[in-house]
Amino acid sequence: MVELYDDERLDYLLADETMKIIQSPTAFAFSLDAVLLAHFSSIPKKRGKILDLCTGNGVIPLLLSKKSNAEITGVEIQERIFQMAKRNVALNNLHDQLQMIHGDLKEMQTTLEHSSFDTVTVNPPYFKTPSSTEHNQNEYLTIARHELYCTLEDVVKACKRYVKPGGKVAMVHRPGRIVDIIEQFRKYRIEPKRIQFVYPKQGKEANMLLVEGIRDGKADVKILPPFYIYEQDGSYTQQAEEVIYGQ
Amino acid sequence: MVELYDDERLDYLLADETMKIIQSPTAFAFSLDAVLLAHFSSIPKKRGKILDLCTGNGVIPLLLSKKSNAEITGVEIQERIFQMAKRNVALNNLHDQLQMIHGDLKEMQTTLEHSSFDTVTVNPPYFKTPSSTEHNQNEYLTIARHELYCTLEDVVKACKRYVKPGGKVAMVHRPGRIVDIIEQFRKYRIEPKRIQFVYPKQGKEANMLLVEGIRDGKADVKILPPFYIYEQDGSYTQQAEEVIYGQ
Repeated sequence: MVELYDDERLDYLLADETMKIIQSPTAFAFSLDAVLLAHFSSIPKKRGKILDLCTGNGVIPLLLSKKSNAEITGVEIQERIFQMAKRNVALNNLHDQLQMIHGDLKEMQTTLEHSSFDTVTVNPPYFKTPSSTEHNQNEYLTIARHELYCTLEDVVKACKRYVKPGGKVAMVHRPGRIVDIIEQFRKYRIEPKRIQFVYPKQGKEANMLLVEGIRDGKADVKILPPFYIYEQDGSYTQQAEEVIYGQ
Repeated sequence: MVELYDDERLDYLLADETMKIIQSPTAFAFSLDAVLLAHFSSIPKKRGKILDLCTGNGVIPLLLSKKSNAEITGVEIQERIFQMAKRNVALNNLHDQLQMIHGDLKEMQTTLEHSSFDTVTVNPPYFKTPSSTEHNQNEYLTIARHELYCTLEDVVKACKRYVKPGGKVAMVHRPGRIVDIIEQFRKYRIEPKRIQFVYPKQGKEANMLLVEGIRDGKADVKILPPFYIYEQDGSYTQQAEEVIYGQ
């Protein structure tokens, strides 16, 4: 048995009910962004190594373990949330495949082997440093959502450090940051190769961006077909259902 | 009357038959790309100045004159095609509003006033320098399509030179070049603000990119709803019809 603390609760991760995940509304609960990133990223299937930065409660490693036998490492900076990720590994009996590390992606050069991962995934904080009002409300959420402990550049730099040449870096972010993201990817020689925009529904502006680059890749990016979340009537689209309910 | 040379022909520019345009299959014929760019770009309506670089036979100035009273200047490097643009102005009695200039965008610092245009539009050559086989086939088309006389950087640099601070630069290009485009826009301080991807039909990758930046603008870009050209049955979508037939 795994213990639950404070307002933590146990949810099913996917509709097939084969996996459970510990969440907390005030500390960390995963979002659609993580689910879409896990679906979007190109990962080694049979062997190899995957790294998930800013892993939170480990939702992306858990999802990836369903479709890959690669070794998966998650890194989380917040001790409280890292503890959730560790219990999530235990809860799903994934010790053999998943490893969670408590650390700061800017300062773990000696913990993880450089240039060694086939794929690095990351769902980083989306917003620039918040106002002090936001700080005071909830520190866990503020750190997860704002560039307080790491900037976009810190994140891309860490991705570059750990991914092997020719390996892949997959990120989910806000479309409004695409210019910054492309600039940082180029700076650290991770060439964007696949981009997909996620739209809440037809006729609306995109509200999510999925991007995958290849370290030292050749310049030429594909813009994949749009991904729509909702039909006009508010129900999930078929493509969203397939991802969210894990087929 | 305006004379036609070689294989030139006279087409209606839009379905409303109010405008005609001289085209030539072997020298220059406008494409959907130009029509979409004219539709996409934000232009001053009542007064002001618009510049269209790589204007070809002047299709974009002609289209913009339908919805703006601004002064519009087109620049074309190829003498043969510039002559078509000039005759197109005459053909449509647009001398008062449209001006065509024969020149090289890299070398006309004394012809056009710097930092003076409200909007600069450009449908530049899409492809990197071609092989010599391509060179030999048709020089007019090779120059219009390949970065032979100007690179992407030359184009963006010229846009920056002529657009006023706070003014807009709108470009149509291939999605595969978005990384290069964003890099060059940032380099010349034209901050991308609106991006729209054009898809041939639902479920396909994008094959065209429309991007508009603001000189010295604040970083934050919107990804507009996708633009689809064809329905699954091969007919034009309603949105494409509206643009192509000039409603």
